Amino acid sequence: MKKISILGSTGSIGTQALDVIAHNQDKFKVTALSCAKSLPLLCRQIEEFSPEAVAVRDETDAKELADKYKDLEVFWGAEGLKTIASMESCDMVLNSLMGMKGLEPTMAAIESGKDIAFANKETLVAGGQLVMDAVKKHGVAMLPVDSEHSAIFQSLQGNQDNEIRRILLTASGGPFRGYSLEQLEQVSLEQALNHPNWSMGSKITIDSATMMNKGLEVIEARWLFDVPLEKIQVVVHPQSILHSAVEYMDSSVIGQMGNPDMRIPIAYAFSYPERMDLSDVTQPLDLFSLKEGMSFYPADRSVFKTIDLAYEACREGGSCPVVLNGANEVLVDLFLHGKIRFIDIQNFLIQMMEAHQTKRNLDLETILEEDMRGREDVRKLVEKTI
Amino acid sequence: MKKISILGSTGSIGTQALDVIAHNQDKFKVTALSCAKSLPLLCRQIEEFSPEAVAVRDETDAKELADKYKDLEVFWGAEGLKTIASMESCDMVLNSLMGMKGLEPTMAAIESGKDIAFANKETLVAGGQLVMDAVKKHGVAMLPVDSEHSAIFQSLQGNQDNEIRRILLTASGGPFRGYSLEQLEQVSLEQALNHPNWSMGSKITIDSATMMNKGLEVIEARWLFDVPLEKIQVVVHPQSILHSAVEYMDSSVIGQMGNPDMRIPIAYAFSYPERMDLSDVTQPLDLFSLKEGMSFYPADRSVFKTIDLAYEACREGGSCPVVLNGANEVLVDLFLHGKIRFIDIQNFLIQMMEAHQTKRNLDLETILEEDMRGREDVRKLVEKTI
Repeated sequence: MKKISILGSTGSIGTQALDVIAHNQDKFKVTALSCAKSLPLLCRQIEEFSPEAVAVRDETDAKELADKYKDLEVFWGAEGLKTIASMESCDMVLNSLMGMKGLEPTMAAIESGKDIAFANKETLVAGGQLVMDAVKKHGVAMLPVDSEHSAIFQSLQGNQDNEIRRILLTASGGPFRGYSLEQLEQVSLEQALNHPNWSMGSKITIDSATMMNKGLEVIEARWLFDVPLEKIQVVVHPQSILHSAVEYMDSSVIGQMGNPDMRIPIAYAFSYPERMDLSDVTQPLDLFSLKEGMSFYPADRSVFKTIDLAYEACREGGSCPVVLNGANEVLVDLFLHGKIRFIDIQNFLIQMMEAHQTKRNLDLETILEEDMRGREDVRKLVEKTI
Repeated sequence: MKKISILGSTGSIGTQALDVIAHNQDKFKVTALSCAKSLPLLCRQIEEFSPEAVAVRDETDAKELADKYKDLEVFWGAEGLKTIASMESCDMVLNSLMGMKGLEPTMAAIESGKDIAFANKETLVAGGQLVMDAVKKHGVAMLPVDSEHSAIFQSLQGNQDNEIRRILLTASGGPFRGYSLEQLEQVSLEQALNHPNWSMGSKITIDSATMMNKGLEVIEARWLFDVPLEKIQVVVHPQSILHSAVEYMDSSVIGQMGNPDMRIPIAYAFSYPERMDLSDVTQPLDLFSLKEGMSFYPADRSVFKTIDLAYEACREGGSCPVVLNGANEVLVDLFLHGKIRFIDIQNFLIQMMEAHQTKRNLDLETILEEDMRGREDVRKLVEKTI
């Protein structure tokens, strides 16, 4: 019986992870759950999965839960997340938090020897070196949950790292594939939230539309698989059937395919190196139903400039990806609240990167400082401009 | 240094295998070579690779070679093939013979403890149980060289047999994909020899056009991977980029892709579990160059009846696949010599299978007898009919 804590249990990944667990109660038990604000859903999850502990964002919510569930340990705030990420009684932590707030609990989980099922790319973008050094030091497993990174991980099984020639990181291209820069200037929030293949949280949906999501995933892959950046190639594949692939030095390409269903990578992370029988919860891939087949295109980097920004930030290293990621989180939030246009996201990111003075040799504290500074700077820049 | 003997060194697989070895002389040494009649090419191979021994079909050719190369051991006939397949100084035997004549040397190689790189599907179609029992008994490795079976083998790495839900065996569909039965009646030898994606020997090219090749490969896969027949599905994929795939019980599909280039599976069989650097000899797959993408269709079994014949013969077992295979070899030969029409191949096979009385519990000797009987019977049937 594997005991799993889920950080971000009311989000898209969290709820699908609980669906996998609900169908496999002989294999998994929930130790702890967390969410920011979705109390009614969290309560239903508590009643269904009987965790030992939960964490929420606000103290008032925590008090309400503690009153309601007398046997439940209830924590709150950033410290609460770290506490449930390092509970003695759990074996694995699924980090499905959105954004940089996942960094500290990730470090806490690693340092207390938990295996990590990882769906919080921003944490690796900002703290890749720090996190992967800790993974090595503490000998824990870092199992990808993002569909692309799970596909790469699956395609690497039975092969050796020094045999990799190229990682083909696929991207749907989002709702604005084929758009010109001029067209991008006109797009609405509603259009940006309408992803063609995946139903996801709003931050990642907007990141998919700007293609910053793919940029962040390039950096995530660089750290997860310890490959040089120049070996990672973005491949636009509108059907989202090939979830990514690895080209080896013998020119053989191994790839993982399937319907877009996050329960497949979640279950693989939970049960690795074994596979679970998901016949009850997933639909088999029907290759014959692909009316247009599977097609592949290079990303249009002259329009979607976020991809090159991510490569450049990762190449530069130090505080550069930290600030890129923090500024992006702020800009997406401003766009979601109608404060800036869609195209402004990448335009402000370009300005931020042009002005950025890289700091190096960051530890956890200075990463968090640089992240805060990037967020403040981009807010000032937006205020000044608009 | 791995020492390799190549049965059928002047054929399509044999010459490509020697190309792989020529580029990797630090890793491989040729112990022995064989061919039927292509003496000039065999002489060039002897001079380039300095094998210890060769085998040819005819005694007169053997004498000529023995006179020409004083230090070379020269063998001939069926016994000669068995001798070089079991030479003490070799580690691995590449069986790239065409047809049932590969069965006895395969058994000889296995019984003398050689690992097998296997590209002789007819042998497994006729003697699957016998061969795989011997593989188990002698603890040798049986490494597939057919591109589809290598793809399946590569897609199985790091996974467990009991996790397989389905094997997706891809087929280009051959030059007559989409044809009606009426259209098949009109096709010429020249058309049948013009395979859209692969350059191969004439027997396998005709088998690809009738789709009997895919039927034989279904049976080969059943034995190589020890999976029930009903888990093997033929998928027509005209671009021959996805060379086959495995669907697991979590609905994840792992597949192997690449340009159609037999040196990739040959090298993988030679160097397994490692991969070789084939940058010098192969072109990387360019997904962006696939103008029509990758498409997938069910096989048209109402026109290409060979596929169902193969499934039925394998399900029936015993002498049934032996006779199907032997009769097919004869019919393809008759078609190549202009004696029968293309459509007659499957029509005669249907008649043969309908009339066949299955014998069971075959050993090597009775398999060879049944094979001979099938060949005689089909020749008589053709003579009687035409």
